[in-house]
Amino acid sequence: MTEPLEPGAVIGILGGGQLGRMLSVAASRLGLRCHVYDPAPQPPAGDVAHSVTTAGWDDEGALRAFAQSVDVITYEFENIPTQTLDLLESLRPVRPGRQALAVSQDRLTEKQFLSGLGLRVAPFAPVADAASLASALERIGTPAILKTARLGYDGKGQARIMTQGQADAALAAMQGAPAVLEGFVTFEREVSVIAARGLSGEVACYDPGENVHEDGILRTTTLPAQLSQSQRMDAVLLAGKILNALDYVGVMGVELFVAGDGLVVNEIAPRVHNSGHWTQAGCAVDQFEQHIRAVAGWPLGNGARHVDVVMENLIGEDIRRVPELARTADVQLHLYGKGAARPGRKMGHVNRIMR
Amino acid sequence: MTEPLEPGAVIGILGGGQLGRMLSVAASRLGLRCHVYDPAPQPPAGDVAHSVTTAGWDDEGALRAFAQSVDVITYEFENIPTQTLDLLESLRPVRPGRQALAVSQDRLTEKQFLSGLGLRVAPFAPVADAASLASALERIGTPAILKTARLGYDGKGQARIMTQGQADAALAAMQGAPAVLEGFVTFEREVSVIAARGLSGEVACYDPGENVHEDGILRTTTLPAQLSQSQRMDAVLLAGKILNALDYVGVMGVELFVAGDGLVVNEIAPRVHNSGHWTQAGCAVDQFEQHIRAVAGWPLGNGARHVDVVMENLIGEDIRRVPELARTADVQLHLYGKGAARPGRKMGHVNRIMR
Repeated sequence: MTEPLEPGAVIGILGGGQLGRMLSVAASRLGLRCHVYDPAPQPPAGDVAHSVTTAGWDDEGALRAFAQSVDVITYEFENIPTQTLDLLESLRPVRPGRQALAVSQDRLTEKQFLSGLGLRVAPFAPVADAASLASALERIGTPAILKTARLGYDGKGQARIMTQGQADAALAAMQGAPAVLEGFVTFEREVSVIAARGLSGEVACYDPGENVHEDGILRTTTLPAQLSQSQRMDAVLLAGKILNALDYVGVMGVELFVAGDGLVVNEIAPRVHNSGHWTQAGCAVDQFEQHIRAVAGWPLGNGARHVDVVMENLIGEDIRRVPELARTADVQLHLYGKGAARPGRKMGHVNRIMR
Repeated sequence: MTEPLEPGAVIGILGGGQLGRMLSVAASRLGLRCHVYDPAPQPPAGDVAHSVTTAGWDDEGALRAFAQSVDVITYEFENIPTQTLDLLESLRPVRPGRQALAVSQDRLTEKQFLSGLGLRVAPFAPVADAASLASALERIGTPAILKTARLGYDGKGQARIMTQGQADAALAAMQGAPAVLEGFVTFEREVSVIAARGLSGEVACYDPGENVHEDGILRTTTLPAQLSQSQRMDAVLLAGKILNALDYVGVMGVELFVAGDGLVVNEIAPRVHNSGHWTQAGCAVDQFEQHIRAVAGWPLGNGARHVDVVMENLIGEDIRRVPELARTADVQLHLYGKGAARPGRKMGHVNRIMR
């Protein structure tokens, strides 16, 4: 498929969480329908999707029927099993493609890829056992963070090593999984660039947002970020470099540390990103529509921002603040329709318009 | 029900066109689900609704099951059959309520209601036959417009009478239906106020927009409208007066003519309104969410506008302009996922951000 999808065409989305939910809403604005695939019943995206399949990632019959019912497949999370992708890819285009997933599913591959592009990353070393951890610590020093190479998100699968004495406990926390030791980066602030690349190769970036994390989970994103003009340019240029190197199609979140002497890439996510939710209030075309445009072969929106925004996540018990937030001027609520408010669970977010 | 609906609650929407579609998307932002009821299969709202019932307005079993599956019922169009409402009302709250529907379903009742509030309307007289038309024309003069009292929209069911000689043809065009003769109002511009009233009686209005119609169909709405400060205040105050008089719950569109000596109410619509689509780009809480907030017993958004917007409808063959519009900066597309682009059919709209 190289022609843009026409109204009525169907986009398949792997994963029916809040990102899938907001992707489905965005697709509707372009006259496109979404079919959501998720192993869990009643996924949040199901409330606003044309159709939903509830089946496992290993259910070949369901995957086949799903693929045959859609025109193109995308996803809201990067940890899709390899066999699932193998099957789906044989039936329909999957965007973003395999290379982006391979890079982002494994921290070690990701670091190697980014360094290979000439981009700065935190010092890193692979860790498989006590011996490799010891030699990694010798080279990188403390403090450092040990992270599982795969399947980590929102601060999970991570252990800090502030002193050599914490090495054994950190290794035990990896539960035998391949890991990466990362050195600390001294930074002034964290920013992220939400970047997109279309099927034709065109690239569009949103203005970088400034992120505050708490307990490994994104708390707020503020637009504009405090950046010099040249830092802003550097951030956008390096995002473009990553997208082009991967022949990427879709939206990517690129997290950066702003150090005194330049930008350090923390990590990339081959999908719409929590730090891009502000675009729903700040831009004519938000990150969700931008992603849909890219995977549907449409031209990209230009990403210009017409208002300053502070995005704040509603995590766990924050959901109790909704009645008050609903009464606050210039606050745009986005609730995900999830059930119980467990600690650390993302229940919604607000975009606060600043003027 | 007087408590606000909680996440997971279900709003029933009568009618699954583009307004129902955008209402359903807005409800999802508040964590609410929508169940759409429409006699036509595959309604546009079905793409983004939690559930859809396809059944006639006289299907008592389907209506009963629908009502029992939802917490509150609203609608996207005002011409719902009386028996349908009688049944639904006995099972669940219907918002906005009966009084608003009675007034807006019949032009004559509407004019009488508005005049009764002390608001200016165009000169009018009921027309049932040639004799009553003749006496109405004698009083109101030409030019005038003969309109069916019920079921007219987008310029349908209307006939202009520029000279006495056109009276017979105009009457014939009514096909025997009760009608209203309206005198022409000399006006400088047409504006509309999108106003909302919550369950608690609070009222919130958006800034008036300036409308341009072509062939009886809304073409563009421009924010801000060219109005003096006192005209702006008058428009908002009279909208509030109408809402309070009807003990209204929900969003209402109030169309006004701006005459040299004041504001004349053209018509009211007890629902979200095409001339309020600009709020999707201009406000933290758009008219669709505002309506959902009202019928769900939530507090209203404040309606403040943070950017200027020009809304343009995409009618019939305008849909061909989509590829070019998709490439234009600061243009937000909203396509309705409809099939064939028949002349006069509303296929979508764009919100153009002005800066």
